[in-house]
Amino acid sequence: MATVKMIEYDQAGPEVKAVYDDIMATRKIDWINNFWKVLAHHPPTLTRTWESLKEVMQPGALDPLTKELIYLAVSVTNQCNYCIASHTAASRKAGMSDEMLGELMAVVGMANETNRLVSGYQVEIDERFKVSRAANSPRL
Amino acid sequence: MATVKMIEYDQAGPEVKAVYDDIMATRKIDWINNFWKVLAHHPPTLTRTWESLKEVMQPGALDPLTKELIYLAVSVTNQCNYCIASHTAASRKAGMSDEMLGELMAVVGMANETNRLVSGYQVEIDERFKVSRAANSPRL
Amino acid sequence: MATVKMIEYDQAGPEVKAVYDDIMATRKIDWINNFWKVLAHHPPTLTRTWESLKEVMQPGALDPLTKELIYLAVSVTNQCNYCIASHTAASRKAGMSDEMLGELMAVVGMANETNRLVSGYQVEIDERFKVSRAANSPRL
Amino acid sequence: MATVKMIEYDQAGPEVKAVYDDIMATRKIDWINNFWKVLAHHPPTLTRTWESLKEVMQPGALDPLTKELIYLAVSVTNQCNYCIASHTAASRKAGMSDEMLGELMAVVGMANETNRLVSGYQVEIDERFKVSRAANSPRL
Amino acid sequence: MATVKMIEYDQAGPEVKAVYDDIMATRKIDWINNFWKVLAHHPPTLTRTWESLKEVMQPGALDPLTKELIYLAVSVTNQCNYCIASHTAASRKAGMSDEMLGELMAVVGMANETNRLVSGYQVEIDERFKVSRAANSPRL
Amino acid sequence: MATVKMIEYDQAGPEVKAVYDDIMATRKIDWINNFWKVLAHHPPTLTRTWESLKEVMQPGALDPLTKELIYLAVSVTNQCNYCIASHTAASRKAGMSDEMLGELMAVVGMANETNRLVSGYQVEIDERFKVSRAANSPRL
Repeated sequence: MATVKMIEYDQAGPEVKAVYDDIMATRKIDWINNFWKVLAHHPPTLTRTWESLKEVMQPGALDPLTKELIYLAVSVTNQCNYCIASHTAASRKAGMSDEMLGELMAVVGMANETNRLVSGYQVEIDERFKVSRAANSPRL
Repeated sequence: MATVKMIEYDQAGPEVKAVYDDIMATRKIDWINNFWKVLAHHPPTLTRTWESLKEVMQPGALDPLTKELIYLAVSVTNQCNYCIASHTAASRKAGMSDEMLGELMAVVGMANETNRLVSGYQVEIDERFKVSRAANSPRL
Repeated sequence: MATVKMIEYDQAGPEVKAVYDDIMATRKIDWINNFWKVLAHHPPTLTRTWESLKEVMQPGALDPLTKELIYLAVSVTNQCNYCIASHTAASRKAGMSDEMLGELMAVVGMANETNRLVSGYQVEIDERFKVSRAANSPRL
Repeated sequence: MATVKMIEYDQAGPEVKAVYDDIMATRKIDWINNFWKVLAHHPPTLTRTWESLKEVMQPGALDPLTKELIYLAVSVTNQCNYCIASHTAASRKAGMSDEMLGELMAVVGMANETNRLVSGYQVEIDERFKVSRAANSPRL
Repeated sequence: MATVKMIEYDQAGPEVKAVYDDIMATRKIDWINNFWKVLAHHPPTLTRTWESLKEVMQPGALDPLTKELIYLAVSVTNQCNYCIASHTAASRKAGMSDEMLGELMAVVGMANETNRLVSGYQVEIDERFKVSRAANSPRL
Repeated sequence: MATVKMIEYDQAGPEVKAVYDDIMATRKIDWINNFWKVLAHHPPTLTRTWESLKEVMQPGALDPLTKELIYLAVSVTNQCNYCIASHTAASRKAGMSDEMLGELMAVVGMANETNRLVSGYQVEIDERFKVSRAANSPRL
């Protein structure tokens, strides 16, 4: 159970209502999820978070599906239950198939494993990696 | 400095040499990075890790660049220095531009933020998310 | 469900009962929460943890509310459900208002975001920060 | 070494320069730290991050020192080296004494310990904690 | 509720059934737990994970109980609920007593605390530790 | 570089000197490592941490080597550099061979991987696991 009360649409003040309307218009949906309704107890955070997500998740050099997959991969790594649930749904809505989900989970699992192997052995960063970074070379 | 000695190619026994050769052949490179040379101190782990990565990172429903971006996103979330260095390089090699990197980092940052917001407020998972999962619906 | 049985007050041996009594006397309450009742299955850990918390959380250069807010911020960052519940309650008891909670969550969210941005880009620590540390300077 | 080049003040385009100027004016300093200079490689992220921090860290129900202490506590929990360095400095600038630092670290350490104890034993959340949350009670 | 449907034994295709049979034969049990039944939705991951665990958890220089205790310690540190439940059970099956569990939890708690203390103060690694590592000395 | 000055033996006040002496007597060594010298800037934390570690790491139902291995496994999972260095050394001193280290790292890597797999798929805890816990059964 949330540690603060959720703010339903008809209980919302003008600032919160405006954000709710924008969420529904932007995502082409007719409902507000629990995350937004809980964040609404602190309107500046609701506004800032929504505006940030709108900007960060828009199509760019990375397409929307790729961005959702990255969001899901981070949420799985952090083991955030709500986020895994909502972003698995969002990824599916953006076009993720069951096979894609299986492959994403496999990559996330391996990455979490090798992160600990390399840190645990305190492997030194290869000079080659540093050289490429100094010049922002796109290739190695 | 690594907690075990690195095994150079010419010091390697037959099992390790075979893995080194396969890494270079598969990745079309002529060198072995420090991670593999450290893992080689425990040959079963070297073999298993390489075989797993080969399987997991091959092109599938997700293309190689997407898989590298996911790997990088996890490494950034875990703040693993070696991994960030090597997978930034690998992502660039697979086609990641500076703009893609900027967008990826923005998504990873936001995801790490909202993961804590939703967990910190202990937001309950919406029923809608559970219904979609029960039937493996690809859409929400 | 806990992986060990909880030890209720009337089931407790002398060492555990003494700790329970001290908790209730120190906190001016008449009940023992589930955390203590589970820890009690290993009495040395119960005793050491209670004694440590008593020492660490007492008023000092930081007042009790500030200490509770820090405890909550860590628990949110780690996404520990029980801890978030109990420390949100403890913070409220110590004087945290809804507005304070909203601001704390905003700071915790931003910190978790910028931690990953700076680590992900492998930003080098500015010399200025090192100089100030060498001399324990209180100012920068 | 950062994975992208830092953008120095005199190399910066108009959007980045404007942010640099605002940082220096707001913080009453005459230099830009490495974090901002690296973020500047992706101007939307630089702008959004600075605007968010400005809003989140301003004095409110929580004073600036308390906010910096929370930021430091999160950075220590996540073990982000750059952040620990910069926020230890920022906390000192905001008034943190050596004694306060010692007490903060003690709280952060204990919280990271008890988070694992309670999760490891899978302690169930007491009903009392849930009741208080349902009504947003400020007291327990 | 899992984000994909579980694959029951009688619904399983040949590859999955073979893995299920091997799990039951190796562990001398007559049932398949939920983790395997969910992983089965992506057969390559089910196969690779089972084969890896079989190899990694076999008796070696470390005995099976020690390996289970390590697995549990990691799961507690990461606060993975399913893993804590299943590996507490597996550790008990391998010979872990209540006293051992209490001592393990105490060590895990302290390690999570001191990890943050040392990182938070940015303590430099002693030269002695580096010397011993360079030569793989078994003693310090 | 540490964020506070290290307190060398001959600079130490009586409380700190007493702890230094006890460390050296207990561990049968003639030097104080950087971690203790940094903690000494806040004497209550130095004392409490040393007393806690002495109690927690003593031989019990788990022998000293097993406790050191657990400590190392947690430090690797958290990717704490100083801790990995010092506890790899301590584990070797307690009897850890190169083969044991290789097997420990393999277990830690797999555990970090499967933790994310099971959390990412939100696998429900099997009823069997709950039953065994309710009665503290040592067997499953």
